[in-house]
Amino acid sequence: MAKRTFAVIGSGALGGLYGGLLARAGFEVHFLFHSDAEHVRQHGLQVESKLGDFHLQNVHVYDHADAMPACDVTILGLKTTNNHLLPKLLPGPTGTGGSVLVLQNGLNVEADTAAVVGPGRVLGGCCFLCSNKVGPGHIRHLDYGRILFGRFSPSGSPPAGIDPLVQGIEEDMRSAGIDANATGDLWLARWRKLMWNIPFNGLSVVLNASTKALIEDPRATELAAALMAEVAAGSAACGRRQPDNAIEQTLEHTRHMVPYDSSMRLDYLAGRPMEIEAILGNPLRAAESAGEPMPKVRMLYQQLAFLQGQAQAS
Amino acid sequence: MAKRTFAVIGSGALGGLYGGLLARAGFEVHFLFHSDAEHVRQHGLQVESKLGDFHLQNVHVYDHADAMPACDVTILGLKTTNNHLLPKLLPGPTGTGGSVLVLQNGLNVEADTAAVVGPGRVLGGCCFLCSNKVGPGHIRHLDYGRILFGRFSPSGSPPAGIDPLVQGIEEDMRSAGIDANATGDLWLARWRKLMWNIPFNGLSVVLNASTKALIEDPRATELAAALMAEVAAGSAACGRRQPDNAIEQTLEHTRHMVPYDSSMRLDYLAGRPMEIEAILGNPLRAAESAGEPMPKVRMLYQQLAFLQGQAQAS
Repeated sequence: MAKRTFAVIGSGALGGLYGGLLARAGFEVHFLFHSDAEHVRQHGLQVESKLGDFHLQNVHVYDHADAMPACDVTILGLKTTNNHLLPKLLPGPTGTGGSVLVLQNGLNVEADTAAVVGPGRVLGGCCFLCSNKVGPGHIRHLDYGRILFGRFSPSGSPPAGIDPLVQGIEEDMRSAGIDANATGDLWLARWRKLMWNIPFNGLSVVLNASTKALIEDPRATELAAALMAEVAAGSAACGRRQPDNAIEQTLEHTRHMVPYDSSMRLDYLAGRPMEIEAILGNPLRAAESAGEPMPKVRMLYQQLAFLQGQAQAS
Repeated sequence: MAKRTFAVIGSGALGGLYGGLLARAGFEVHFLFHSDAEHVRQHGLQVESKLGDFHLQNVHVYDHADAMPACDVTILGLKTTNNHLLPKLLPGPTGTGGSVLVLQNGLNVEADTAAVVGPGRVLGGCCFLCSNKVGPGHIRHLDYGRILFGRFSPSGSPPAGIDPLVQGIEEDMRSAGIDANATGDLWLARWRKLMWNIPFNGLSVVLNASTKALIEDPRATELAAALMAEVAAGSAACGRRQPDNAIEQTLEHTRHMVPYDSSMRLDYLAGRPMEIEAILGNPLRAAESAGEPMPKVRMLYQQLAFLQGQAQAS
C-alpha cells in the first residue's frame, strides 16, 4: 500500500512543524502557505526543534488551496478565527474523499470543517506544543509536542472509539518522531485541555500577565482553580466526567512549565483577533445547554470580548 | 449656642472641598495637611467649584494631628488604605468627645474609626463627588457633590434612625452650600453605592477602561449588571433590600455621567494602593457570612488583588 499523503493548511508554528516532520520522514506533504510561499519555494523550510534541527529544500508549496492535489489527510493548522475561509480552502486537498485532522484550539471547532466536508471525514486533536514561527518558513519548536487526537462525533454523541484510520495516522506520525496519541473520546480530551486553556489563556490577557506570574500568585491561582472547577462541571454536564485530580494535576503541571506566553496573549499583544469563541464561547454555550452555566467563565468571556472590541476600535 | 467646630483629616479633593465650603460659610475648621501644610499656611486654600470659585487666606493648618484642638465633628477624608494611621490621627481632634464623620468609600469602613473612638461617636457617609486635587492646596470640584450620611451602627444592627446630631450637621452643611442628606439607614446607603463602585471601580482597573467605554460596550454592561445583581443579593442577605429598579437606575445614571475615571483606576494608574478591601473585600466577607457568596465579585476581587500585587512588585 502506498504511503499516506498529507496536506497542511496553515503552515505556521504548528502545521509547519508537524508537516515538516512528516516530510522529513519521507511522507508526501503538500503545504499551503499564506505570505511565505515564495520564500519557501526558494529557500525551503527551516525547522529548529528539540527533536533535531532540519532543513527541507524541495517542499511542495502552494499559495492557493484549489491548486493542491487531493490528499489522504489534510492537517488543519489555521487559527479558528480564520474558519470562515474553510469553504474555499478545503475542497482542493479533500477533493477525492480524504479526511481532515483539525488541530485547532477550543471546543467543537471541528463543526466548521464538518459543515464543509461532512462529519464522517473529520478528526480532531489537541496539541500540547510550544512552537513559534520566527521568520518566513522558519519555525522554532521550543518544548512539548504531544498530539492527542481522535475521530470527531457531533455534540452529544458517545465516545467514537479508535478506528483503523486513526490508528494508521498515529503510526505514521510516530514513525516521523511525533508524540501522537490516539483517543477514542475526543470530547473528553478537548474539555480536559480547556481546563488549562480557559483560565490561563483568558487570565493572561485580562490580567496582562505571563503564565508564570499567574501561577506564582495565590489569588490568581485560586481563581484559576475556580475556573477549572466550572469547566470540569461543564464537561460532566456534557457527559464527559473529568478525573477527580484533574484540577490539582493541571495546576501542578503549570507550576513546572517553562515560562510561556499563551497563544491568546500573543494574539492580543500582536493586535490579532483572539480565539474567544472557540476557547470560551463554544464551551459556554455547550455547558449552558446542558444546564451548567459556568458563571465565572462567562465573566472571563465578557471581559475578553470587551478587550477585543477595544483593540479593534483602536 | 456656639457654632459647631470641625476638623478635617485628609484635606485632599474631598476633605479640602467640604472643609473649605464650611470655612467659607464661617465655621471654624481645622485642617490636617500631609505635604501641603506649609504651602497652605503661606498661600491659603484655592477651590475651583461649580458652587463658585473661592480662596481662603487664613486657614487653620496643621501638619500633626496631635496639635489640633478638640472639635465637635472630625471629617475623615483619608483613603481607607491609610486607616492604620487612625490611632495616631484621631485622638487630637476628638480628645473631648466629638464625633467623627467617616467620608470613605466601601462597606463597614467606620469600624476602624469606631475601634479608636468607640462606636457611639461615629457617623458615616457616601459622597457622590467628582473632585480632584490639582496642585498643593488647590482643589478642582468638577461635578456632583452630594453627601448621604447617617449614624454608624455595628454590622447586623437595625437602621439607626436620624438623631439631632445628624440633623444638625445636615443643617450646617446645607448652610454652607453642600448638598448634604441625612439617612436613617447608613448600611442601606453604603450597599447602594457599592452597586456602582464594585463594577465600575473594579472593571475600570481590570479592563483598563474609562466608565464611558464600559457603559458603551454591551458585554461590559451585561457584566456590570451581573455584578450589581450579586451586590444587591448580598445587601438583601445582610438585611438591606435594595429597590427593584436599582440596577436599571444605576446603569441609566452611568450612561449620563460625565466621562470620569474611577478613584480606583486613578490610584492604580498612579501606582498607589487601591481600596480593594474597603470596596470589595468587606462586602464579600459580609455577604459570605450571611450565606450569599457573590462569586463574580470574588473573581473581580481576586483579579484586583493580583494586579495590586504585580504593581507593588514592580
